[in-house]
Amino acid sequence: EVIAETIAFFQPKHLAGKRVLLTAGPTFEAIDPVRGITNRSSGRMGYALARACREAGAEVTLVSGPVTLARPHGVVRIDADSALAMHEAVLNHAAQCDVFIAVAAVADYRPQAPAEHKIKKKGSPPTIALTENPDILAEVAALPQPPFCVGFAAESQALGENAEVKRQRKGIPLIVGNLVQESMGSDAATLTLFDEHGRHPLPTGAKIDLARHVVAHIATLLEDR
Amino acid sequence: EVIAETIAFFQPKHLAGKRVLLTAGPTFEAIDPVRGITNRSSGRMGYALARACREAGAEVTLVSGPVTLARPHGVVRIDADSALAMHEAVLNHAAQCDVFIAVAAVADYRPQAPAEHKIKKKGSPPTIALTENPDILAEVAALPQPPFCVGFAAESQALGENAEVKRQRKGIPLIVGNLVQESMGSDAATLTLFDEHGRHPLPTGAKIDLARHVVAHIATLLEDR
Repeated sequence: EVIAETIAFFQPKHLAGKRVLLTAGPTFEAIDPVRGITNRSSGRMGYALARACREAGAEVTLVSGPVTLARPHGVVRIDADSALAMHEAVLNHAAQCDVFIAVAAVADYRPQAPAEHKIKKKGSPPTIALTENPDILAEVAALPQPPFCVGFAAESQALGENAEVKRQRKGIPLIVGNLVQESMGSDAATLTLFDEHGRHPLPTGAKIDLARHVVAHIATLLEDR
Repeated sequence: EVIAETIAFFQPKHLAGKRVLLTAGPTFEAIDPVRGITNRSSGRMGYALARACREAGAEVTLVSGPVTLARPHGVVRIDADSALAMHEAVLNHAAQCDVFIAVAAVADYRPQAPAEHKIKKKGSPPTIALTENPDILAEVAALPQPPFCVGFAAESQALGENAEVKRQRKGIPLIVGNLVQESMGSDAATLTLFDEHGRHPLPTGAKIDLARHVVAHIATLLEDR
């Protein structure tokens, strides 16, 4: 921790005085008390960004899905398992923050009616009816005085196209695209930034180094506002 | 590790010379390349049992679902994410073992047709059609010369009844029942053993202590065979 603090000390203070809210990790959408729908997000990119924001001088709140990562030093963590819990936590804090970075892989859908008791195996296989989850990032971006919003686009194909479409649909200034085959669950990633000026590919690297790049890019865009 | 090895050294060698195969953790049943159905099993009970078996002198192979636990010292671990992968790994090893302990929370069902690419959000919510997974424990118990089979019953209600019904249906000598609200994801648990002599509740305790109890019970039943 002393080493981490020393490294943090020498990072440029791009976000000094800024309040940053992030989400990270997967969500767990309950089917019954033990089963649920989740995804392969490890939370590492979000945790790396939370750390990088704090290193850059920001006051950081991290809304985290179910992961086993340690809370980054100096960061306030709020645990939120499901999309609905994450939605509530984010909306409670979004109005007081300057930057919102939605890294969590929030489920688009949740089971319509989670069972109260563990579903027993019997007869023919059940089907799971789903219902749509709220779009947390779009709601924050639509606030009367929204924070600077950053989205993530995890895609398994056609990265550039999907990411830029997503950026414009959500009405946000910056989206970070990554190909999930390369980065999900790994400590390294290949990211491309999409903003109104175009696309900015980053060199493949460790998530913490990429996170520092992203923070520097956010700081530049914040200055231009 | 030195301490763990010292503790291990002083455990009674109930299973000296025995080959034990275990499964542990949840399974992840893919919906698409990033999403899937899983459950809240942490793998801790299975890992504690693997450790207790090895302490008791057994040669231990652990087929593990996706968990972040460290491999217990001296145990061979085989990673198997899905029910089908776990099925294959177990059937490859079951004929060469003396004891099989099925601790993993294997999904009863998997999505019928996992998508090759990440499913995009569009129109009305999809439904997920499921298909039945193989019953690994029942298949092992039905082998011509089956190992001594131990099952686990994680129940959210009516523990005794469900566990004993499961024991008889699967045709196995021992089943370990636990109430999931109390134990899933926790380091402690309350277990009840069910065998042909009846039910044997164990005092609530740390999973490693409970695991040693279970190992001693297995050893007694093995001697009686």
